[in-house]
Amino acid sequence: MKRHLISAKDLTRDDALLVLDTAEELARVSGRSVKKLPTLRGLTVVNLFFEDSTRTRISFEAAAKRLSADVINFSAKGSSVSKGESLKDTALTLEAMGADAVVIRHGASGAPYRLADWINGNVINAGDGTHEHPTQALLDAYTMRRHLGSLDGRKITIVGDVLHSRVARSNVLLLSTLGAEVTLVAPPTLLPVSVGTWPCKVSYDLDSVLAKSDAVMMLRVQRERMNAAYFPTVREYSRRYGLSAERYSHLPEHAIVMHPGPMNRGVEIAAEVADSARSTIVEQVGNGVSVRMAVLYLLLGGAQPAIGADK
Amino acid sequence: MKRHLISAKDLTRDDALLVLDTAEELARVSGRSVKKLPTLRGLTVVNLFFEDSTRTRISFEAAAKRLSADVINFSAKGSSVSKGESLKDTALTLEAMGADAVVIRHGASGAPYRLADWINGNVINAGDGTHEHPTQALLDAYTMRRHLGSLDGRKITIVGDVLHSRVARSNVLLLSTLGAEVTLVAPPTLLPVSVGTWPCKVSYDLDSVLAKSDAVMMLRVQRERMNAAYFPTVREYSRRYGLSAERYSHLPEHAIVMHPGPMNRGVEIAAEVADSARSTIVEQVGNGVSVRMAVLYLLLGGAQPAIGADK
Amino acid sequence: MKRHLISAKDLTRDDALLVLDTAEELARVSGRSVKKLPTLRGLTVVNLFFEDSTRTRISFEAAAKRLSADVINFSAKGSSVSKGESLKDTALTLEAMGADAVVIRHGASGAPYRLADWINGNVINAGDGTHEHPTQALLDAYTMRRHLGSLDGRKITIVGDVLHSRVARSNVLLLSTLGAEVTLVAPPTLLPVSVGTWPCKVSYDLDSVLAKSDAVMMLRVQRERMNAAYFPTVREYSRRYGLSAERYSHLPEHAIVMHPGPMNRGVEIAAEVADSARSTIVEQVGNGVSVRMAVLYLLLGGAQPAIGADK
Repeated sequence: MKRHLISAKDLTRDDALLVLDTAEELARVSGRSVKKLPTLRGLTVVNLFFEDSTRTRISFEAAAKRLSADVINFSAKGSSVSKGESLKDTALTLEAMGADAVVIRHGASGAPYRLADWINGNVINAGDGTHEHPTQALLDAYTMRRHLGSLDGRKITIVGDVLHSRVARSNVLLLSTLGAEVTLVAPPTLLPVSVGTWPCKVSYDLDSVLAKSDAVMMLRVQRERMNAAYFPTVREYSRRYGLSAERYSHLPEHAIVMHPGPMNRGVEIAAEVADSARSTIVEQVGNGVSVRMAVLYLLLGGAQPAIGADK
Repeated sequence: MKRHLISAKDLTRDDALLVLDTAEELARVSGRSVKKLPTLRGLTVVNLFFEDSTRTRISFEAAAKRLSADVINFSAKGSSVSKGESLKDTALTLEAMGADAVVIRHGASGAPYRLADWINGNVINAGDGTHEHPTQALLDAYTMRRHLGSLDGRKITIVGDVLHSRVARSNVLLLSTLGAEVTLVAPPTLLPVSVGTWPCKVSYDLDSVLAKSDAVMMLRVQRERMNAAYFPTVREYSRRYGLSAERYSHLPEHAIVMHPGPMNRGVEIAAEVADSARSTIVEQVGNGVSVRMAVLYLLLGGAQPAIGADK
Repeated sequence: MKRHLISAKDLTRDDALLVLDTAEELARVSGRSVKKLPTLRGLTVVNLFFEDSTRTRISFEAAAKRLSADVINFSAKGSSVSKGESLKDTALTLEAMGADAVVIRHGASGAPYRLADWINGNVINAGDGTHEHPTQALLDAYTMRRHLGSLDGRKITIVGDVLHSRVARSNVLLLSTLGAEVTLVAPPTLLPVSVGTWPCKVSYDLDSVLAKSDAVMMLRVQRERMNAAYFPTVREYSRRYGLSAERYSHLPEHAIVMHPGPMNRGVEIAAEVADSARSTIVEQVGNGVSVRMAVLYLLLGGAQPAIGADK
């Protein structure tokens, strides 16, 4: 595995399986009886968030603390960044203060690459613009593997605003590496022009695709985009691309329903589907902590044994 | 003791005394020589604050850290909550991330009850709307007991805006459970209509009540409410319901003066009374940490010994 | 050393050298192999910030955590302070909650002195108005000493908006105590009227001073002040007082270039100068953590040995 985790594309099949296997092992040992592992004691993880994302920030914070790392949260709001400091100077400052890893969320696609050029510590991309969100893809793959076993030949459907979704892009890249067949379903105006070069299929007929899916992942509708010219009305969107109870009933019996959260219940997913037995939405959140522990451990703790109880 | 602490009403007399005794013991052992106890090591306490309250949040944070728990602060501002996520989805997310207890402050009365329906972890109410703030009542009772001994038959006076005060409500419930006689003094427009069903007396004559009080608790005037039709002017309020130096001089010699903070010096309490020898206002803050340590310990650490030095 | 660190003026030469020597020792032992020292375990450091300063807050947070202290961040925004609570009541509250030291950043010059009158814990000034920022001066002195050896007789030039700079004031006081000769260069309207009483020289001719400097420290231009009547235009400022590549080339070969950050590249300092081999700007940040560890250790951990690895 490389020194940074910026794109799902950088992960070989072996890398990805190593992360998933490590996450499984960490989830096992950090269960109720142990919880906190001493693996990263003395190391500092900085959460450098230029966009608000309490959910992702807390997941990384919980993962790092469960490995006994110190965590420092840096929100760009009201910081020297707002006084005009460059990303580079912010990065060098954090590294000089002793950051061993920087978890970065940034509104500009590609920002984590620039960070990785400037600092010696490990860089983990926690979402950059419309580009990627690789730990989200890893936690999704982890969740699928727990329910479906090996992903080879599995049919995964991703539905919604692919154009603006870093989650969709990272999932397509990682899932194809792991041997799954991904189909995107989206309004034509919400697909990127480059989608023809992605390792996946595209369909506009949700119902026929669902009937053959092993997993269906509903993307979040960004409410702030809804009135844009390229976006259907909410009612129209929900009718054509929402996962209603009716559509849910036509899924294969073993299929799972996923969502990266936070959900708009009643828009892209019906409330009763979100709460159904085959929904893995809450489980995905827990798996996110395990996967992020694995990533932090593999990047930071190479020489340390992952396993061993805190005293 | 139940699995959650949402209302002072849920505490039996034995429960309440157990919390107070445990707080006393924890205050003793976590004194200067030891400070940090390993009791809750490996457990995670989430502070889920939908309203700003730095004071209460820090008190819980200090209590949890002194018991070696990890603390994650979740402020609803700028979080997925502001993107329309429901309280339920937020709660399930936090639990999936490994929250063992959730300390919730919410603007809506009753929110902690809903939370307790949804998650398996312990729920602690840190203030919900105008409903309750049970750990505040516990720290007040703790403070009174240190100064007055047993609360049986003790006369406690609570003065001010009872209508909007969760502190008043929780105190009335807890103090009556502990055998004290509570009298509320307030402008008629600042008493709830239900007050006739509360286990306390009501009076409009502050001076005659003060002369017989063992403790007097001044409630904070919410400045933002002051221009409302039902509110006296500040000067009028201060003259009729404020604890002036003159009024202070008529208190029994052993009586103590309390305030939950933050104070409006010169409005509900004169500065020299707040700083007087019989004021317990600063002491209440310290007792708050001890009482919250006790609550966290009793809810979370049942099997662990509370006492034992960190190494 | 006194119980608080509020002004560089309070440090004797021996005090200052003790801080610098301790910082050097801590930097040595908290290197890659050890990182975390158990020295302040069980103690609580509160960062009480009335002004945003992520950079300084994180530096103190990293320093305290590396000594195993618990850290509680208190930002005045949205706190009871904004509800009208006095600084005194906030201070007493934090102390009652168990703060062993309070690191304060405040917009009003002198606020840390008032704090020190009210609480028993140690007070550390992290910047008050236009008054002082003593740990910044200590980290600057530490950086100079590493590059130049003893500061006796060394010529240090500080350039820019001295009028509004607590950094300049603290540096003049500390550097003169350590035997250095300080020269201030600034537009006449950006010098305080009291500068005649400071232990330093003043010059308006940057070029002639630079040629004899062992270190030159460029102050940050506060962009929000730039349109004020007393301020030159940005272009004019940059031409007359900025450290251009041309000016840099006339510095003595051993001289170092400093800046407290965050920088306005292209205004007070050219980008290539900031990134040059003799720039210590990034190093200053790292030294800041070491110096703050030393200050916390000397104020809080007197009886504890500073050195000894965490296990």
